[in-house]
Amino acid sequence: MSLVIVGSVAFDTIRTPWGDRERIVGGSGTYCSLAASYFTRPRVVGVVGRDFPRKTLALLRSRGVDLAGLRIKAGKTFHWEGKYEDDPNRRTTLRTELNVFADFRPEIPAAYRNSRIVYLANLNPEHHEFVLGQFHKPAVVAMDTIRLWIETKRETLLKELGRVHIFFANDEEARLITGEQNLIAAGKALVELGPSLVLLKKGEHGALVFGRNFVFGVLAHPCDHVIDPTGAGDSFAGGFLGYIDKSPGLSARDVRRATVYGSVMASFAIEDFGIGRFLALDRDLVEARFRQFRKLTAF
Amino acid sequence: MSLVIVGSVAFDTIRTPWGDRERIVGGSGTYCSLAASYFTRPRVVGVVGRDFPRKTLALLRSRGVDLAGLRIKAGKTFHWEGKYEDDPNRRTTLRTELNVFADFRPEIPAAYRNSRIVYLANLNPEHHEFVLGQFHKPAVVAMDTIRLWIETKRETLLKELGRVHIFFANDEEARLITGEQNLIAAGKALVELGPSLVLLKKGEHGALVFGRNFVFGVLAHPCDHVIDPTGAGDSFAGGFLGYIDKSPGLSARDVRRATVYGSVMASFAIEDFGIGRFLALDRDLVEARFRQFRKLTAF
Repeated sequence: MSLVIVGSVAFDTIRTPWGDRERIVGGSGTYCSLAASYFTRPRVVGVVGRDFPRKTLALLRSRGVDLAGLRIKAGKTFHWEGKYEDDPNRRTTLRTELNVFADFRPEIPAAYRNSRIVYLANLNPEHHEFVLGQFHKPAVVAMDTIRLWIETKRETLLKELGRVHIFFANDEEARLITGEQNLIAAGKALVELGPSLVLLKKGEHGALVFGRNFVFGVLAHPCDHVIDPTGAGDSFAGGFLGYIDKSPGLSARDVRRATVYGSVMASFAIEDFGIGRFLALDRDLVEARFRQFRKLTAF
Repeated sequence: MSLVIVGSVAFDTIRTPWGDRERIVGGSGTYCSLAASYFTRPRVVGVVGRDFPRKTLALLRSRGVDLAGLRIKAGKTFHWEGKYEDDPNRRTTLRTELNVFADFRPEIPAAYRNSRIVYLANLNPEHHEFVLGQFHKPAVVAMDTIRLWIETKRETLLKELGRVHIFFANDEEARLITGEQNLIAAGKALVELGPSLVLLKKGEHGALVFGRNFVFGVLAHPCDHVIDPTGAGDSFAGGFLGYIDKSPGLSARDVRRATVYGSVMASFAIEDFGIGRFLALDRDLVEARFRQFRKLTAF
């Protein structure tokens, strides 16, 4: 059992109406691997500059994250700056400094090549071929994407959707890709494009899962003050894939439980700026919130 | 056990991108009583003009709806015209002809005065006092409201919230009343204003229930093409209150199941224009969909 996460390890500057944070640790690979670390020992493939804090690397290692695939390169770490208004579902990117991430061509360590699950977090879809070609037939390939690739690499993105098993998308991305305003229609249309499972993330409204012949849904944990929504989607993917990595397969029961664990991890991520909430989180708290999710919708 | 619904019985003209309907039967009292009729024998208090079709009155009676409180007055029936765009959660009112509804002062028939549950669907909150004063201590008073009263009768509306047990609101109304953008915060703030139960309707995203010490949620039935969202909220209230009318009280279990039945009835209402879907609906189909709601979120 093994999960490889190919994504960004970065600095984020976050602006919200209730406070700002400058150059705190973020990135899809960071959130995803931290969230997955409560279930499995995830492997990260990414790149950082020499300015990236050793303390954070030590923290990730202490959580069982394997960093053999994380290159430390001369130069500066990827830096993203974003701003949230009162509605945390809407954000504006103020700045993107790719730095060492700009010409990142992920090299997969030999020890990772037999991994069971490969997750391509927010990669340029033109690089998928190069990355996936380095693996020996992973049982599950999962991907997420960003608005930038939908708008600038649409054809390649659609081709890549044809070969992944699991696709994570938020409501905006699902609508942009399919042209469907209705999210149920959008989810079904995404399944038609190839993935056998589509996880449609709806922020405060929870998540929907679409398969060939079923729809499953989970409500978001009721949170009356979202501190920082950054990384919620990546944490969702981490919880989901981390749980799946410890499951025998992708049975309906596994997928349902994995979706709830994904929602659990996302619900923690938004309770503090950056990865702050994960610093004081243990598996017992994760299990307690899993039970709260059950209570929220039981009837 | 008895439920009185005070609301509008009306004509609606509906415009959508996929079709229009002129002067079809609608109104909060109509939708709510039809939805409730699958659980109890609801009593309707309202007014129509002589132009209202007898066929519809016969249909309501055949569903067990008690129309002793429905006055037929010389003049024309209330007529509303609205338009939906691609996003069925947004609608524009094009025309409101109050007609016989303009000076409607609901008279409660003597036989209704001992009713257990009174629901004030979309009444001017200044008329609540007059209506409720005609009842002998109903066990449960429930209300909904509309944007118009929030904007023009705010003080009276807030006072009325202080004396009802159950308040139904959609997301827009909850935000307008409380000033809270976050729906969890808005729901909690509404409970602070008085009602012991707040049902927050979120359209395609389902519904949340807020009590003194709990939050419960239900997802919407996955519908990939909403035909006509008109009446979904009223049908939700009808399913909820109809089920509660047959329950011994307002236990957590009753409230959870009632919320799902409310969602079931709303999910049928949107599948056809006007009350069309209720013409071919029986209790078995209602129960089958109730089981689908369980399957949708079970894990």
